[in-house]
Amino acid sequence: MIAPYIIGIDIGGTKCAVTLARHSEIVGRWEFPTAEESSPEGVLKRLAHLADAAVERTGVSRQDVIGVGASCGGPLDPDTGVIHSPPNLPGWDNVPAKDILEEALLLPVKLENDANATALAEWRLGAGRGCNSMAFLTVGTGIGAGLILDGKLYRGKRGLAGEIGHATILPDGPPCLCGKVGCLEALASGSALGRTATALFHGRTQGSASAREVTGREAVEAFHQGDPQAREIVLRSAAYLGIGIANLLHTLDLERVILGTIAIHAGEEYLEVVRGSVAAHCWPSIWEGVDILPCGLGDRAQDYAGISLWME
Amino acid sequence: MIAPYIIGIDIGGTKCAVTLARHSEIVGRWEFPTAEESSPEGVLKRLAHLADAAVERTGVSRQDVIGVGASCGGPLDPDTGVIHSPPNLPGWDNVPAKDILEEALLLPVKLENDANATALAEWRLGAGRGCNSMAFLTVGTGIGAGLILDGKLYRGKRGLAGEIGHATILPDGPPCLCGKVGCLEALASGSALGRTATALFHGRTQGSASAREVTGREAVEAFHQGDPQAREIVLRSAAYLGIGIANLLHTLDLERVILGTIAIHAGEEYLEVVRGSVAAHCWPSIWEGVDILPCGLGDRAQDYAGISLWME
Repeated sequence: MIAPYIIGIDIGGTKCAVTLARHSEIVGRWEFPTAEESSPEGVLKRLAHLADAAVERTGVSRQDVIGVGASCGGPLDPDTGVIHSPPNLPGWDNVPAKDILEEALLLPVKLENDANATALAEWRLGAGRGCNSMAFLTVGTGIGAGLILDGKLYRGKRGLAGEIGHATILPDGPPCLCGKVGCLEALASGSALGRTATALFHGRTQGSASAREVTGREAVEAFHQGDPQAREIVLRSAAYLGIGIANLLHTLDLERVILGTIAIHAGEEYLEVVRGSVAAHCWPSIWEGVDILPCGLGDRAQDYAGISLWME
Repeated sequence: MIAPYIIGIDIGGTKCAVTLARHSEIVGRWEFPTAEESSPEGVLKRLAHLADAAVERTGVSRQDVIGVGASCGGPLDPDTGVIHSPPNLPGWDNVPAKDILEEALLLPVKLENDANATALAEWRLGAGRGCNSMAFLTVGTGIGAGLILDGKLYRGKRGLAGEIGHATILPDGPPCLCGKVGCLEALASGSALGRTATALFHGRTQGSASAREVTGREAVEAFHQGDPQAREIVLRSAAYLGIGIANLLHTLDLERVILGTIAIHAGEEYLEVVRGSVAAHCWPSIWEGVDILPCGLGDRAQDYAGISLWME
């Protein structure tokens, strides 16, 4: 009989969480603000302690736990289990997270970057169920994809596959934080929305001293409230996202594309503009029958990300 | 003991060929102009007849032949073995090529589109040997890719993976024959080169009646002879090709990209401009260690395409 329990760990820039699942059902969840610990080792040891306590509290024997799945922003190496300086985790330079967690928990640990782990979660439990080739796109601060190809996670040579946020969409486009210009991320990410909205906001309040930054989420909020300028920039970003997705479909002939983060909050009108742009930039034979859907697990996707690493 | 012989069939718009290989060594080759036969059935029966004669002439027993590998321009369905109206083969509408060849030859037949089959040939015998994830790009009349991902040919849901010629590179770019605008094929294919060169040529000979079409190959020829305008358009097309390849690398994190057709004839200076453009449009961590190479099998690639379908 297969051990029924899996421990999921989510290492984030803002918060960290441990989940305990029996088969695919989450039976407990514990979290803490990442900043409460002063070092990567401190964070990992607290996560291990929480996981230990979770197992004990639930009365589960250690033999009933298949393993621990940890999800974290990349870059990281899933083979060695080392985290290499993710932008959202300052100071996490070459941290052997897998080794630290295995030593503390005496359980096998798998480490995967969050776009890949969330793609697996959506594929096994969310909007990707039943398909063979799909992409999960996170459209938040950055844009990245996790790719399931022929029923398997595809990582590429160095685990960098799916970095479509830095594909060039507009060769003479706006500068990207990566140093290039016209990247998909510079046109359609939450940060790009925020930057464009900030520039507009400064235009509106010209001469006043209230020069503050607008976030991508606030721009989406203003779009929902019917602000015409917010509407224009949010829907323009949706059209650019459509070009990026159309290029992905011409490259990989996928069955489904699943969108997370902003795509969920922006709602159906945003998704319709994305779909229209994909249709306009795709061959009909490539676009026909492709579903573009919001993330099925919604806000729980990150909880399932680590757990899905141990699901068959 | 494994049967040592493989029959390769190449179905092209201009000519068709049969090759007989012992392991990976070609021991015979026979071809005829496609237009000599008036129907797809006529072409396939003549190919079968040539293959039969090849086996007899060489004194090979039918049990010594593993199978027949046929390569043809897409779209086609490798599972059913039916050819669906390729642009370079007018009248080949829903032709059950696999069934026709199997019935005539009494040998198992595999059918694959030529970009995929050439990718396999380059991977097993050419410039792709020893790598795990690569793309073969044909840059001729059209632009298409065959993808080897994690040591396996990746076809996508409907066998349309690798249609990167119709990824959008310049959203406000020139019209493509496919009906969209700014496709990679409209910017960097041989046909695009020919169209741009023709427009230039008409400009030079304004007022004269000698309005003739310039081909992509003639444009490359003029580039080799040092014509400054040909130089400009050929190297500009190389720069656009580099953007397409950079986007492919950000999506798939490949080890190697192998270029066929024009890329071979245009030579090292063209390749250097392609590489420079890829470097300018890639993250250093994605571009580092990637080789962009001309097709290793050169003009023999098409002969090996069908044969490679039966190689392990």
